[in-house]
Amino acid sequence: MFKDLPLSKVYQLLEPGPVVLVTTARKGRANVMTMSWHMMVEFEPPLIACVMSSANYSFAALRATKQCVIAIPAVKLAPKVAAVGNCSGRDVDKFEKFGLTPVPAEHVAPPLVAECFANLECKVADAGFVNRYNLFVLEVLKAWRDPRQTKPRTIHHHGYGRFVVDGKEMRLKSRMR
Amino acid sequence: MFKDLPLSKVYQLLEPGPVVLVTTARKGRANVMTMSWHMMVEFEPPLIACVMSSANYSFAALRATKQCVIAIPAVKLAPKVAAVGNCSGRDVDKFEKFGLTPVPAEHVAPPLVAECFANLECKVADAGFVNRYNLFVLEVLKAWRDPRQTKPRTIHHHGYGRFVVDGKEMRLKSRMR
Repeated sequence: MFKDLPLSKVYQLLEPGPVVLVTTARKGRANVMTMSWHMMVEFEPPLIACVMSSANYSFAALRATKQCVIAIPAVKLAPKVAAVGNCSGRDVDKFEKFGLTPVPAEHVAPPLVAECFANLECKVADAGFVNRYNLFVLEVLKAWRDPRQTKPRTIHHHGYGRFVVDGKEMRLKSRMR
Repeated sequence: MFKDLPLSKVYQLLEPGPVVLVTTARKGRANVMTMSWHMMVEFEPPLIACVMSSANYSFAALRATKQCVIAIPAVKLAPKVAAVGNCSGRDVDKFEKFGLTPVPAEHVAPPLVAECFANLECKVADAGFVNRYNLFVLEVLKAWRDPRQTKPRTIHHHGYGRFVVDGKEMRLKSRMR
């Protein structure tokens, strides 16, 4: 169902700032959260920095297991993405509650999310900034793309439930990668 | 011309992942670059992490002076934003070349950019990750908003000169800030 995405292309998914889901797994139980504080740090192998509140149930799981999956939803999932952000894995199985389908990953224990158009299997590459900023540096080990979701439009969070959806595409002459 | 923006609202500008301009000033000369690798780290005072290639002329200026301005352009500036990214301040005065107007900032030496709808005066709060990842942690000292630019649509870079412009707005019930 998912196809390989070359690691060299991962930055093209995250650099535009989409709202993402993050899955973790601990003691045999998977969880999923919503996240917007992330950025690329290196092209290849792709390094991603992300900041996760230590109040989040996922924070402890990521810190302990050093593995997660970043799953990128298109706009049709927006209501579920917001709902995932409104509750905690402490209280509820969010996969079941919101009808998200966990799919086994290849290199990590946390699951891919079947409904997302891209999934990035990650390990924590550097936890040296966690104490100070709740900032994890992740390395993407494997990237997957759903070829059936062509031209997915992502969503961007502007605070307090206001989201902006991808609009028109522009091409400009660029020497930048 | 610019109005104060409360520091507590800065994250609403950067969390969605817009392409931004970054100004620096060194030895009496201002420069400007294009950047997409940034994220919020803390709400207030706003902390922003950003990664800047050490090959960029701005990198040395930021490292030495510990000051910059993050200026956020709306879509009408997109051709200039791409052009700024295609050349180096080593070779050219980019403000002059591209008709961008530097405006004195209040707390830092680098200028605001008059044409941008928001400008964030920043100091380097933590340079401890620069050697390893070219990652600066910035603190926003002062934020400005141009009240004449209502509903600005930002641009998001997908690689190699492909940009996506903000489209429709959605509101979803959210407990998230």
